[in-house]
Amino acid sequence: MSSPKQKKQEIFPQLRQDPISKTWVVITPKRRARPEEFDQSRIVKRKIVAKKEDCPFCEGNEAKFGNPTSLLEYPRKGGKWSVRVIPNKYPAFLKNQKSKVKSQKLYISQPAIGSHEVIITYHHEDHTPKQPLWLVDKMLRAYQERILNLKKDQKIKYVHIFVNEGDEAGASIGHPHSQLVALTLIPEMIQKELDGVEQYYKRFKKCIFCDIIKREQDQKERVILENKNFITIAPYFSRFPFEMWILPKEHQTSYEEMDETRRRSLAEILKYSLLKLDKGLGEPAYNHFIHTSPVNVKSQQYHWHVEIFPRIDIWAGVELGIGVVFNTMVPKVAAEFLRKVKI
Amino acid sequence: MSSPKQKKQEIFPQLRQDPISKTWVVITPKRRARPEEFDQSRIVKRKIVAKKEDCPFCEGNEAKFGNPTSLLEYPRKGGKWSVRVIPNKYPAFLKNQKSKVKSQKLYISQPAIGSHEVIITYHHEDHTPKQPLWLVDKMLRAYQERILNLKKDQKIKYVHIFVNEGDEAGASIGHPHSQLVALTLIPEMIQKELDGVEQYYKRFKKCIFCDIIKREQDQKERVILENKNFITIAPYFSRFPFEMWILPKEHQTSYEEMDETRRRSLAEILKYSLLKLDKGLGEPAYNHFIHTSPVNVKSQQYHWHVEIFPRIDIWAGVELGIGVVFNTMVPKVAAEFLRKVKI
Repeated sequence: MSSPKQKKQEIFPQLRQDPISKTWVVITPKRRARPEEFDQSRIVKRKIVAKKEDCPFCEGNEAKFGNPTSLLEYPRKGGKWSVRVIPNKYPAFLKNQKSKVKSQKLYISQPAIGSHEVIITYHHEDHTPKQPLWLVDKMLRAYQERILNLKKDQKIKYVHIFVNEGDEAGASIGHPHSQLVALTLIPEMIQKELDGVEQYYKRFKKCIFCDIIKREQDQKERVILENKNFITIAPYFSRFPFEMWILPKEHQTSYEEMDETRRRSLAEILKYSLLKLDKGLGEPAYNHFIHTSPVNVKSQQYHWHVEIFPRIDIWAGVELGIGVVFNTMVPKVAAEFLRKVKI
Repeated sequence: MSSPKQKKQEIFPQLRQDPISKTWVVITPKRRARPEEFDQSRIVKRKIVAKKEDCPFCEGNEAKFGNPTSLLEYPRKGGKWSVRVIPNKYPAFLKNQKSKVKSQKLYISQPAIGSHEVIITYHHEDHTPKQPLWLVDKMLRAYQERILNLKKDQKIKYVHIFVNEGDEAGASIGHPHSQLVALTLIPEMIQKELDGVEQYYKRFKKCIFCDIIKREQDQKERVILENKNFITIAPYFSRFPFEMWILPKEHQTSYEEMDETRRRSLAEILKYSLLKLDKGLGEPAYNHFIHTSPVNVKSQQYHWHVEIFPRIDIWAGVELGIGVVFNTMVPKVAAEFLRKVKI
């Protein structure tokens, strides 16, 4: 007999809508409602590049692989640098092109103006979950410094910082690194979130991200980790199995505005959130990135945060064809599993 | 010396906007501007399931794997059936759930109402490029019959038909099959295209797809294949290397309206377009699907078509993070390569 307090059984498959971007997700657990039933054989452990001498990102190889110029370098005791930012050797965005929009009746094109950079931490194998906190913090500081520098150019409208870890997440080099692209337009997904934030604000006079944080703190079932300034949750409308969002608890619009104390707090929660993923799921491939406010446009409401997407399932004909996303893992079950992983 | 007629050299990386959905693509050829320089080692040949006796989709195994009920079956000379449609064993959409939208202030959910079906062709190994034309035609006819049947239910708003071929494209069973999902909502990408078509129509009083076809027929450089009723092109704003679109030359809003003659013409161009991909690139994984008009909503302008996405590159932190897509292959170069593949 069910007690009156017991919640009604959720019915699956279930359609859930991301209240910010409005994307529809189908939570479709199949046989894998419980993470312990989750077919871990599907998870490929991330590879590491074996040889330091062939690594284009290792200290000492700067000239060998044709990337001698640093955009930013932090020194390291007993070495050359701890964090180094260089231009991407095969950039998708370039600084010096004539920015001319070629708008024909049908097809619109323009040179891809902006910047494409690589942020490298010095150790050849140790990525964020294994790095000391001071190094993670320095990497996060380099992100801030680059955004502050790039937004001096009034043409730049958005700076996107992301990490691809493992082959299944599109990484081509194993040495731990992040990437940055600076664009002259506000990307589609950011615009959708800005619109969602604005709509919610008009209706409730509140930040939707702040309300999500409050709701998750009250309910607790989708909270994975928490420290003084940040909270890691499995979003109710997760697109990926074991998806995590790291949100600053206080409302803050832009990543680069974060002070030193809060940045150290972020370094800690980022390291340990990723460590839970690695320990719990056997080092899967993943992408993570920062969603923050555009730059050089009139300020809009936003609440910057980090999103982490483990790449266990492959997007197929539904996701790519119509933009509806299938997720085989119930977010609160994923949260419960990750919460219990010892770190 | 360049002749006055010679076109100006295109500058890469280049931002291109899909004029229908408005998605931004960065054409960023890196070192692989020419397909012969395209790193074919990155392409994994699709696997085939070896044992017929373990195949849930093979004739004779219908009861063994718990899918004895057919929604549709076409007979076959010398066998039981040529094409068979069954409910998906692990459906993401179900017919019989109470359709109640649970709309709270923040989170919106509803049971995933609809249908999730599998369309199976009888041969265990031969997929579309190797199938006889009559069988491809029967498969395309089954798609039509299922749409016509499903749209009798007024709740259904869209029927999506798609194929996942190969592990990298999210396939879990090797036996050739298509899938169908019927939804009670108009999916995001379809709505975006409908909006794009409407905008263009308001401005130019023409169908944007018809204008794209005309433009590509005039220019010829992105045409891959053509027959009486259809044309295969590499879209100017391709999201994937070697992406192909198959479009009916005459304006037609809905796939299910296509007559028998035109369906045979589609069977032919679909088979040979996929054969070019297989022969040219060594049987890569791919997704393909139909984009067609919603059902049971007041008719809107649309021009149905097929999209084919080879899964050679992996979407990473830019595509998943901000919705801007990097494509390392220049569409007209891909078209030239595929045009020349002998079939």
